[in-house]
Amino acid sequence: MTQKQPLRIYLAGPEVFLPDPIEAGRRKCALALRYGFIGLYPLDAALTLDGLPKAEQARRISAANEDLMRQADVLIANLTPFRGVSMDSGTAFEVGFMRALGRPVLGYTNVMPDYATRAAAFRQRGFSTDDGDRPDLQVEDFDAAENLMITCAIEASGASVVRQTVAPGLEIEHLGGFELCLQQLQRQMLGTAATPLHRL
Amino acid sequence: MTQKQPLRIYLAGPEVFLPDPIEAGRRKCALALRYGFIGLYPLDAALTLDGLPKAEQARRISAANEDLMRQADVLIANLTPFRGVSMDSGTAFEVGFMRALGRPVLGYTNVMPDYATRAAAFRQRGFSTDDGDRPDLQVEDFDAAENLMITCAIEASGASVVRQTVAPGLEIEHLGGFELCLQQLQRQMLGTAATPLHRL
Repeated sequence: MTQKQPLRIYLAGPEVFLPDPIEAGRRKCALALRYGFIGLYPLDAALTLDGLPKAEQARRISAANEDLMRQADVLIANLTPFRGVSMDSGTAFEVGFMRALGRPVLGYTNVMPDYATRAAAFRQRGFSTDDGDRPDLQVEDFDAAENLMITCAIEASGASVVRQTVAPGLEIEHLGGFELCLQQLQRQMLGTAATPLHRL
Repeated sequence: MTQKQPLRIYLAGPEVFLPDPIEAGRRKCALALRYGFIGLYPLDAALTLDGLPKAEQARRISAANEDLMRQADVLIANLTPFRGVSMDSGTAFEVGFMRALGRPVLGYTNVMPDYATRAAAFRQRGFSTDDGDRPDLQVEDFDAAENLMITCAIEASGASVVRQTVAPGLEIEHLGGFELCLQQLQRQMLGTAATPLHRL
């Protein structure tokens, strides 16, 4: 990678649902900057949404986020489970979006057990049909943190999925795994990475 | 739309986890064909995976599915909740992937309550920190079936999200909503749709 401009990283994750999502974005951008990268955070605050119908608010946020992704060189996703066995669906959409644009995607999760283990625990607690599980459904078991479309997109980008356990209650906002992703990118910039990121 | 070749539809959804995923794909392809469309189903069976390490199996399935999406003109996603409040994360990835390629995405869900209602019910049942929820997290509330990145991508394609309730236990495989999506596509082909699908 020879580009002179700082890399712009789209910061995908469920932090937008934290009590103070703006502050969460500032923290991620500040950490990215310490590594010389520009963070692009899906910051709804920059839009004027007051008084608009809900559908129009949603439309503007979606359009702004898609625009922001097109401006980004790379994506780092927070894959931590969100209201169920899997990651936030909006974040999964964004990983796929950037992957289709041919841009590298990286990711981390703050919950260590793999997908199959989490799915087994979820099932054992005995949920209703509204939860989208039942005993005869197969559980994907590739020792991976998430659905293979997500983890393989990250690996095909030349990156590796960061998995670690954090203090209980900090699963959504802990930035340790995010920082390890930044370090993966930094090794790319310095040319010391074991595997070059594809298409960067 | 003036193309002569039948439209190729990528069939995204958690049906790949049904006890007989091949048969589920056949049913969707057969129904698509009744409307004159070719269904492309993420059929792992066509790959030779026996004896390969899990990571390599996953890699080949992912690569095959990405190739299949690139061959598709349009995507129809099953957005029904899967092991939690939200849809299958692999399907969400695929909606984003096709959206970034500029191809229309359609979707249906077999669970009627909207995202905010489902999230409230999930929270009320009192889950552990492993489930990725806690009382101070905001719940997205746009009266929509899913995260706005998903539903707005469908609406921006010129389609509308199909939502209906089906018989309990058939949430994953019921094809009523899928057929309504096929009918949306058919109206496009006949030129009788209220809103033309974008970029088709």
